Amino acid sequence: MVREAVILGAGLGSRLKERTKAMPKGFLELGGMPIVEASIRKLIAVGVERIIIGTGHCAEYYEALAKKYHIIETILNPIYAQSGSMRTLYELRDRVTTDFFLLESDLIYDSAGLFALANDLRPDLLLASGPTLSGDEVYLESGPDGRLVKLSKRREDLSRNDGELVGITKLRPSTLQGMCAYAESVFAEKPMLEYEHAMAAVSKDDPIHILRIDNFLWREIDDEHHLEIAQKKIQPQIEQAEALRRVRREVLLNPGPATTTDSVKYAQVQADICPREKEFGQIMDWTRTELTKFVADPSEYVTVLWGGSGTSADEAMISSVVPENGRLLVIDNGVYGARMAKIAGVYKLNYEVFKSSTTAPVDLNALEATLKAGKFTHLAVVYHETTTGLLTDLPSIGQICKRLGIITIVDAVSAYAGIPMDLSALNVDFMASTSNKNIQGMAGIAFVICRRDRLAETAKIPMRSFYLNLWDQHAYFEKTLQTRFTPPVQAFYALRQAIIEAKVETIEGRYARYSACWNTLIKGIDRIGLRCLVKPEYQSKLITAILEPENTRYNFNELHDIARRAGFTIYPGKLSDANTFRIANIGDIQPAEMDRFVQLLQKYIDEIRT
Amino acid sequence: MVREAVILGAGLGSRLKERTKAMPKGFLELGGMPIVEASIRKLIAVGVERIIIGTGHCAEYYEALAKKYHIIETILNPIYAQSGSMRTLYELRDRVTTDFFLLESDLIYDSAGLFALANDLRPDLLLASGPTLSGDEVYLESGPDGRLVKLSKRREDLSRNDGELVGITKLRPSTLQGMCAYAESVFAEKPMLEYEHAMAAVSKDDPIHILRIDNFLWREIDDEHHLEIAQKKIQPQIEQAEALRRVRREVLLNPGPATTTDSVKYAQVQADICPREKEFGQIMDWTRTELTKFVADPSEYVTVLWGGSGTSADEAMISSVVPENGRLLVIDNGVYGARMAKIAGVYKLNYEVFKSSTTAPVDLNALEATLKAGKFTHLAVVYHETTTGLLTDLPSIGQICKRLGIITIVDAVSAYAGIPMDLSALNVDFMASTSNKNIQGMAGIAFVICRRDRLAETAKIPMRSFYLNLWDQHAYFEKTLQTRFTPPVQAFYALRQAIIEAKVETIEGRYARYSACWNTLIKGIDRIGLRCLVKPEYQSKLITAILEPENTRYNFNELHDIARRAGFTIYPGKLSDANTFRIANIGDIQPAEMDRFVQLLQKYIDEIRT
Repeated sequence: MVREAVILGAGLGSRLKERTKAMPKGFLELGGMPIVEASIRKLIAVGVERIIIGTGHCAEYYEALAKKYHIIETILNPIYAQSGSMRTLYELRDRVTTDFFLLESDLIYDSAGLFALANDLRPDLLLASGPTLSGDEVYLESGPDGRLVKLSKRREDLSRNDGELVGITKLRPSTLQGMCAYAESVFAEKPMLEYEHAMAAVSKDDPIHILRIDNFLWREIDDEHHLEIAQKKIQPQIEQAEALRRVRREVLLNPGPATTTDSVKYAQVQADICPREKEFGQIMDWTRTELTKFVADPSEYVTVLWGGSGTSADEAMISSVVPENGRLLVIDNGVYGARMAKIAGVYKLNYEVFKSSTTAPVDLNALEATLKAGKFTHLAVVYHETTTGLLTDLPSIGQICKRLGIITIVDAVSAYAGIPMDLSALNVDFMASTSNKNIQGMAGIAFVICRRDRLAETAKIPMRSFYLNLWDQHAYFEKTLQTRFTPPVQAFYALRQAIIEAKVETIEGRYARYSACWNTLIKGIDRIGLRCLVKPEYQSKLITAILEPENTRYNFNELHDIARRAGFTIYPGKLSDANTFRIANIGDIQPAEMDRFVQLLQKYIDEIRT
Repeated sequence: MVREAVILGAGLGSRLKERTKAMPKGFLELGGMPIVEASIRKLIAVGVERIIIGTGHCAEYYEALAKKYHIIETILNPIYAQSGSMRTLYELRDRVTTDFFLLESDLIYDSAGLFALANDLRPDLLLASGPTLSGDEVYLESGPDGRLVKLSKRREDLSRNDGELVGITKLRPSTLQGMCAYAESVFAEKPMLEYEHAMAAVSKDDPIHILRIDNFLWREIDDEHHLEIAQKKIQPQIEQAEALRRVRREVLLNPGPATTTDSVKYAQVQADICPREKEFGQIMDWTRTELTKFVADPSEYVTVLWGGSGTSADEAMISSVVPENGRLLVIDNGVYGARMAKIAGVYKLNYEVFKSSTTAPVDLNALEATLKAGKFTHLAVVYHETTTGLLTDLPSIGQICKRLGIITIVDAVSAYAGIPMDLSALNVDFMASTSNKNIQGMAGIAFVICRRDRLAETAKIPMRSFYLNLWDQHAYFEKTLQTRFTPPVQAFYALRQAIIEAKVETIEGRYARYSACWNTLIKGIDRIGLRCLVKPEYQSKLITAILEPENTRYNFNELHDIARRAGFTIYPGKLSDANTFRIANIGDIQPAEMDRFVQLLQKYIDEIRT
């Protein structure tokens, strides 16, 4: 797994003069997007979590890109006009912390090249292709062990031609340091040094190998002729090759598992690893910290993860955090609140249930009175009820609990990462969610985000479940960077990718997209003449329970099958006292898709009405 | 997901006369293997669980293949010499139960074509390519909606050319029935009818669409010229394209998660699905039945599955099956036995621990005496202790329990699917394992294989854990074909693929391969002068704990890092009273790889000794 990337984007691009006078070469557009932005998307899609761009000429373009993709950092090479690409790389050398892809900014390429580099045991590896006949080839000569020995734009400089330099390389930080040491020794004499010559220099001692892919689809764009060939021939070929790897689009309108991106799906395809290896520990550590950061300060809160469903997360909270002399009140305003009460019963806790409407807000006065009168120490509540789309007034409930000194246990399974939250401001002590809802990963990982001090207090509570004990899982991970029991490795890789994509979108951006889908849905339902179970002002905007039409010809299964054939999956309601079906707009879906679904729904309803 | 495939292999291959006089065309060798066998491997790798081959000319070749790949069925077209491919398809029409790939037998192709067909919403879909100039093209004409309208070997018969027929199609059973109905109506007049003409005929009413991939790598081999081009040009291109999708090979010698095949890794890349959809229920149902069939008769035993690790499976057994008046004895002869005892303690069961050596067999007389004296109702035992490689004498223990009427709870986490077992003969009532050990799937699924009558008896035991209750999980699945809680969907897809591959290999074949790896290891250890913790005759042949050399220069971490750089992952011991490291030979590994590891170990030991 390659977690970082460096893009060299300082150059003047002088051979494309008119086009790149006031813009970096990477901002040439092909396929409807600047080529460097397409490259960035490919890097993100293969799991790069941090991109460092060395800038120079028209650096402001890259700075604007860094504002759009929140995982980009830019470093200016102040003498870019008087130096070569190695100087740009030298300027950012201290930013690189792990194995990285090094790319030129003016490339179009098939993303399969990144996958191939990552999937090679050799740590320093340069991508090469067969002949491009581009007129601007950098030829490569390799040694008997496959290492880079020499490179040149003049074929006659080499004793053999083992391929052409693409401009995509996988390197270790130590190799970069070697290149920088070499550069320091020659900068005075060769200020215009290109990075590839530094690679050739260090490869003598510490091999940089060559990975040659004969028919690799790529092109560097240095002049008008390259641009024309890229547009007419290479770009369409790349698009067709990438399209072949695309996974069938199924839009899940069920309330999770949610629709995922193809890059999250492919993130599961990684080399086998023992999860007790340090590098996997670092991935889990990164994952738990990033999950925390979406909703809290990691110095105050910590995430505990294991293999299981959302219910296992609720069970871990309920069974792990209420001491023997504690007293728990569970708000039951839907299926999931009732389930938490059931779990409290299984563990024979000292608990009571606070019944509340499944479609309207909790009566805060009554709740406060109950909490006081019953001398409760803990409150369990569902933030967003998945069966109805009802959003509980967590800010007010949190304040009541704060005043009364009550520890809060929150099921945020279908709220987390879809609705912006600040756990500290909300006075949430424990918050459960899973990998497969709004965070848009794959099913298989349950997690609880815990206030560190509250979690530490649970250490002394006698264990009620072995597998689902929060404190033990946390303490073991802190000590070892390993989970107590085998984690679902591939679901972790998918979750990691989902987190990267959530960081790029931001939770606020995600909520805005979800809300736009919901608005499309709500307007459509209204136009069709259907009604929601819950008043819009009490809804989450993430899941909508729609009352089934009172028409004897209406048949949920029929509607389901029609939708399914068109690529949409819908879901029945789950309440006993109202006939509903549910439409969730969580996951990787767009308003235009929701609009297509609404039209399909309209057509079905029109037909049964005639 | 396409779960079945049909291969049409009856033809005479008359244009390759000398080569195919006494052999079907599909048995021409390319890339070191009959082309039809390569095709079968590609089908298996994309998740086909059943292959039906229509045979005719030299049918015995296919029958031999069916013995090698246990998921193949053959059906003879008795009049193959006087009929066309449609007749062969007609003969096997009743065998097809679900959407299937239909292939000609004389093809070489890039497996990406199968992926592309499966990842298209259109249910009936024919693969087409751009021009091959093969001299034997079947040209296709499509209608405005992309459906197949007409096909011909003569370009001039068509009003437009929309591609060439490859000979790989995705079809629904209902479409096949339509083709057969058409065929019945014309067989008398056209006995030599080819299947593609039947497709064109039915596509008028029920569209069979065309999926065109311009640069698709494939060739049909009908004559010597085709064969030559295939050998020299197409086959190497296919091999390079497929190599690009290969995942870095890391040989895990840790005791699970085990090394997996690339096809298991890629099986996770599926279209998003709501796991409550019927088709996913069918996949889970197939999975639980096949898991059972490896060790028992599904009418007598049933598998219960959920998201979790092996420990969660142990906890589910211990917490779910011992009634309030039950009395449990736990054999502790290693870390995992001790863990089961710990779990019994967490749930405050009435239990005792039977301590036994971590390196030698259980004293059966003492065990029997203890069971009798203590009036125990249940016995919990680890079949194969993962920390030491010690194999418990389960057959004898099972017989003791049978005589005494004691219910057996067996942790077979690292035995199941690696060691042939017959649960009924072994008198096992409950047996736990996971998806990521010998079955060679991905981590994330825990399961317990239960004797149906014993499981039913647990229905009345008060629930001790909600998430890990066996009976509830089982009863809910039986009623709904859904798991109680969100299952780890992608881990299920991987497990399904792993099961297909285990069926092809057979558990006996797998045990033989594991044993061959172990023999290589044991001989190597002996040659090097290292010793095992457990005497070979008590070992499982799956995991070996090796005593660390008494050499002050020995450093496990150093050995680990050297091995890791060479693509091997090894694992420290876990016992407090002996310094060991562990080598597991479970997973998709071969004796030659173990041999490479042994050489590496030898080199390291030689170096520290000098």
